[in-house]
Amino acid sequence: MAALTNTRRVRIEWGDCDPMGIVFYPCYLAMFDDSTHYLFERALGIAKPKIMQVYECAGFPLVDVRVRFIVPSRFGDDVDIESKVGEFRRSSFVVEHRLHKGDALAVECFETRVWIRRNPDDPAAMRSQPVPREVRERFEI
Amino acid sequence: MAALTNTRRVRIEWGDCDPMGIVFYPCYLAMFDDSTHYLFERALGIAKPKIMQVYECAGFPLVDVRVRFIVPSRFGDDVDIESKVGEFRRSSFVVEHRLHKGDALAVECFETRVWIRRNPDDPAAMRSQPVPREVRERFEI
Amino acid sequence: MAALTNTRRVRIEWGDCDPMGIVFYPCYLAMFDDSTHYLFERALGIAKPKIMQVYECAGFPLVDVRVRFIVPSRFGDDVDIESKVGEFRRSSFVVEHRLHKGDALAVECFETRVWIRRNPDDPAAMRSQPVPREVRERFEI
Amino acid sequence: MAALTNTRRVRIEWGDCDPMGIVFYPCYLAMFDDSTHYLFERALGIAKPKIMQVYECAGFPLVDVRVRFIVPSRFGDDVDIESKVGEFRRSSFVVEHRLHKGDALAVECFETRVWIRRNPDDPAAMRSQPVPREVRERFEI
Repeated sequence: MAALTNTRRVRIEWGDCDPMGIVFYPCYLAMFDDSTHYLFERALGIAKPKIMQVYECAGFPLVDVRVRFIVPSRFGDDVDIESKVGEFRRSSFVVEHRLHKGDALAVECFETRVWIRRNPDDPAAMRSQPVPREVRERFEI
Repeated sequence: MAALTNTRRVRIEWGDCDPMGIVFYPCYLAMFDDSTHYLFERALGIAKPKIMQVYECAGFPLVDVRVRFIVPSRFGDDVDIESKVGEFRRSSFVVEHRLHKGDALAVECFETRVWIRRNPDDPAAMRSQPVPREVRERFEI
Repeated sequence: MAALTNTRRVRIEWGDCDPMGIVFYPCYLAMFDDSTHYLFERALGIAKPKIMQVYECAGFPLVDVRVRFIVPSRFGDDVDIESKVGEFRRSSFVVEHRLHKGDALAVECFETRVWIRRNPDDPAAMRSQPVPREVRERFEI
Repeated sequence: MAALTNTRRVRIEWGDCDPMGIVFYPCYLAMFDDSTHYLFERALGIAKPKIMQVYECAGFPLVDVRVRFIVPSRFGDDVDIESKVGEFRRSSFVVEHRLHKGDALAVECFETRVWIRRNPDDPAAMRSQPVPREVRERFEI
């Protein structure tokens, strides 16, 4: 079985860029965070806030991220971000993002995330648990 | 009676600036939002999240903002932001921020905000109410 | 003659929202800044960085902005931003943005901007000048 | 010889936090980017934009970053970021950041950066070169 992949085009905006004229790198991370949400929306077929309700999920925060910056992007560039879950582990999962500028791989990102179950008795508690099977299955094609 | 004023020094960071080398203007707005929180902390003598607990406040979102940009700032500039409540109205209040670069008034901002009471029965509800008298009094000196 | 209007749909992202669950207001300003660039791109028919080259423009920074926040937006909302130049003045121009959430006007923004000519002899100089006639005409339909 | 270390206190702001009430992770990356600039300022004894002039440097962009998120931080937390250059390699260098919340290590970041020499003949060119010896020596104590 292969991993469901979501690709979206993103315009590099003026406000994403720094005085060197290239993307201020934390802005890439925000784009990848958005891309993770779009991937989940595509896999589960419902809008992102609904996912949190239906699956009693309080979010899927990062525990680790690794990013390689290969080719810089500039204001006005249109780039493509390709995202998939690379691996579901026992208590975490890895989302892989590859940002292409034309044919070139420009940025590569590996997010390790955990699935946090909503706890109505203690909203501030953040206990991770395995991604539910019915969620995991939707990431396979 | 005069208005309590809080002044703080802010460094213009690399990531605040755009390809022209000057502050990307929404970053000023974030600085002013922070400054409003610092002003409240100074007036009420407790850290910001405590304010929300003690005064059963869910936040003080904006309903209107007006900003004049007079002198641009650049990466590495140290600027001073002076903040005070200009006026408490019946159901809103105006926070005034003046950002100085050396002696020059560089940016001027007028935020009109409302005070939202926390509603435990309906956390998503956002009903404004007058700023409590015991809060208002702390902004006078 | 009527003003050329550009409308675009924007998704409210997780990272745009604050602990109240509503858009952190400076993020709206970044969306409007992007919308101004899209409006110029539509009017002039060329990608944004090209505009700066072709018209020897170093940018069109803000001198004044006024925003009214009427209805809050939340993570996952799809909103529509409608943008047009409301007025070309002698040495500035006003871009108007109206953000709709469904049928409701949710945020309204008036940006007063100046047109900065690129100065190769002194890249740090920022002298405004009237928007060139051949640019202005492209904003009429 | 030991590595020069710079520590600074950072307040977690309202706008840094997401609807879960914890820091939106790209905001940490912006804090670390700022911290790298402060480390350089401390090592070289001159304000950041001066560094770029004196050492003919166009910037020191990232080629790789790895971040581990151990303990979440919330609005109003005061955290300490400790930064040092862990290693100068032939054509890159690694800046290490450790963000502490009280006694706990909360976030750990390893930035691999390159030193870009300013090229007046071609400002858009971004050629890396070894960090100059007179710069490297200032990071030892």
